Amino acid sequence: MTLRAIKYENGCLYILDQLLLPAQSKYLQIKGVKDGWKVINKMQVRGAPAIAIVGCLSLAVELSSETYKNKKDLRQDIEGKLNYLVSSRPTAVNMKIAADELIVLANQLCNDESFDVESMKLRFISTIEAMLDKDITDNRAIGNHGAQDILSHFPGDTMLRILTHCNTGSLATAGYGTALGVIRSLFHSKRLEHVYCTETRPYNQGARLTAYELVHDKIPATLIVDSMVAALMKHRNVSAVVVGADRVAANGDTANKIGTYQIAVLAKFHNVPFYVAAPFTSIDAKIPSGDRIVIEERPDREMTHVGEHRIAAKGISCWNPAFDVTPASLIAGIITEIGVFKPSDLAIPLAKNES
Amino acid sequence: MTLRAIKYENGCLYILDQLLLPAQSKYLQIKGVKDGWKVINKMQVRGAPAIAIVGCLSLAVELSSETYKNKKDLRQDIEGKLNYLVSSRPTAVNMKIAADELIVLANQLCNDESFDVESMKLRFISTIEAMLDKDITDNRAIGNHGAQDILSHFPGDTMLRILTHCNTGSLATAGYGTALGVIRSLFHSKRLEHVYCTETRPYNQGARLTAYELVHDKIPATLIVDSMVAALMKHRNVSAVVVGADRVAANGDTANKIGTYQIAVLAKFHNVPFYVAAPFTSIDAKIPSGDRIVIEERPDREMTHVGEHRIAAKGISCWNPAFDVTPASLIAGIITEIGVFKPSDLAIPLAKNES
Repeated sequence: MTLRAIKYENGCLYILDQLLLPAQSKYLQIKGVKDGWKVINKMQVRGAPAIAIVGCLSLAVELSSETYKNKKDLRQDIEGKLNYLVSSRPTAVNMKIAADELIVLANQLCNDESFDVESMKLRFISTIEAMLDKDITDNRAIGNHGAQDILSHFPGDTMLRILTHCNTGSLATAGYGTALGVIRSLFHSKRLEHVYCTETRPYNQGARLTAYELVHDKIPATLIVDSMVAALMKHRNVSAVVVGADRVAANGDTANKIGTYQIAVLAKFHNVPFYVAAPFTSIDAKIPSGDRIVIEERPDREMTHVGEHRIAAKGISCWNPAFDVTPASLIAGIITEIGVFKPSDLAIPLAKNES
Repeated sequence: MTLRAIKYENGCLYILDQLLLPAQSKYLQIKGVKDGWKVINKMQVRGAPAIAIVGCLSLAVELSSETYKNKKDLRQDIEGKLNYLVSSRPTAVNMKIAADELIVLANQLCNDESFDVESMKLRFISTIEAMLDKDITDNRAIGNHGAQDILSHFPGDTMLRILTHCNTGSLATAGYGTALGVIRSLFHSKRLEHVYCTETRPYNQGARLTAYELVHDKIPATLIVDSMVAALMKHRNVSAVVVGADRVAANGDTANKIGTYQIAVLAKFHNVPFYVAAPFTSIDAKIPSGDRIVIEERPDREMTHVGEHRIAAKGISCWNPAFDVTPASLIAGIITEIGVFKPSDLAIPLAKNES
């Protein structure tokens, strides 16, 4: 069964503690926003969609057990707690966006006379629950569109060998995953021969998290270090590369975890099609091209240490960009929940989405 | 001053304990072949040329303090001790080759009546000492040829930015280094702006050893992880890549540390010239092309652990080739102590060497 890192039912929320992975698989109960704040702040949950969903669900849990005198009190409590949750990791944009939307909703419901305090609370909770469902539904759609599109380029019942980078699975989303959702979908269609996942230095999301998910789901998989990609393509007949995206520009240029651009160049050289899988909302129509995407640089320590253990010579300086930008020209398709698009064809769905 | 990992003078030998690097810089005295065997076996010294030289020098140290009744006894002792040294790391081919050559020499000297036991011993010791000097002299010639050739492709007083992979410096050779020798030579010519060294997973020779040498020599340098090479080439205007070689085929195909092939592909894509630096003896005229080079696969544990610390999910399988082969078509020049050759021009010096 697909790994579930966020378990929620009827006001009860549990999350898989990612700080203990891969050594231990332990679920933590989240009893309210204070717990929600703590697990986000301590990075026991990570990945932009997952952070927003866990934060909002922790509010749903808390609201379930509280009673309010009137709608104004409820509205005020919601706004205060959402702002508190946003402060848990200020750079996590998805939590901020979700909070802003939910505050607008709280104001609307507060002013809508057809809602009393109890129905307002229930409506608010069900809106949050729908976020969880939507993320999973969208991921499954991404998985199916991607699998169908990739398979359409191979004859008959060819079994595929897929390479992926970083972690884009159940541990980064509400469940199922984006690039890893495509891989899961191929696996369930019995068309997946093997997955190769890169270690993804310096933070090792591939070795720690993707490998963990693949072992959990019993998907046949092999770990490689980031420097083995070209040798793998030369010797192991890779059918396609599928990676996630942090942000896609209007022209299809894609910002993703450092190392993605390099894999795209190597894929081009070896004639391996390179796909990006991401929710359609990751495509930012306001950014014309990748040149405009600012790349965050992270602390040296991520590269020089593993835990407390120093692995690099003292005194050496480091360059540690968190992301890189893959030009659209290297991308065969962008896989979203509404379909798979060539980078050059993105304008049409973007315009449709605007209107 | 250039780092010296092997210090030898008048029968006194010290080596830098590489197992303690980069945390501690500690020299160990090698008092004879027993110590020599131990430091090679425990990998306190590594790198094919360095192993052979330390092994042979440990014999020179021991011979210096011994006296022999007759030439036959001396010959027998030399042969026994060399075979013992070869057993320290049976896969280290250079030690075996050196031992075979020295046993031939011992037999010749034993049969040559112009030598008595003392002069035979002195001649034997000075032959070993010459190996140390030759390796350093050859490395300096590699450094100078490489620096001159690379500089000839850049106008005026351009300052260069060089990328290298793995460790090819004083810690892998008798001193100075091959690819790192070229970098040292550019630095001493005041034509080096910056060096970038890759971490070189899974064994981290770049982060641990190359970075250590660069910091020691005060050469301006920055460490990157292996997945950042393409981003570096795109954003930091790399002038050239220089790497070492484990073995070069007659057509110029080059086997070297895993990740080298990938860097060569990325260099081609970004129009960055890619050089290989190695002693001329690394070119094996008997191997027509890289297809014939068998690639050693190493244990999973190198990838899944750092020291005792597990960094990959339990149960994941690994692919861990130690080397890859870079096709000659991606190589701008092969830098040796006798000159720099285009892969297509190797036949001429190889034929000259045969004759």
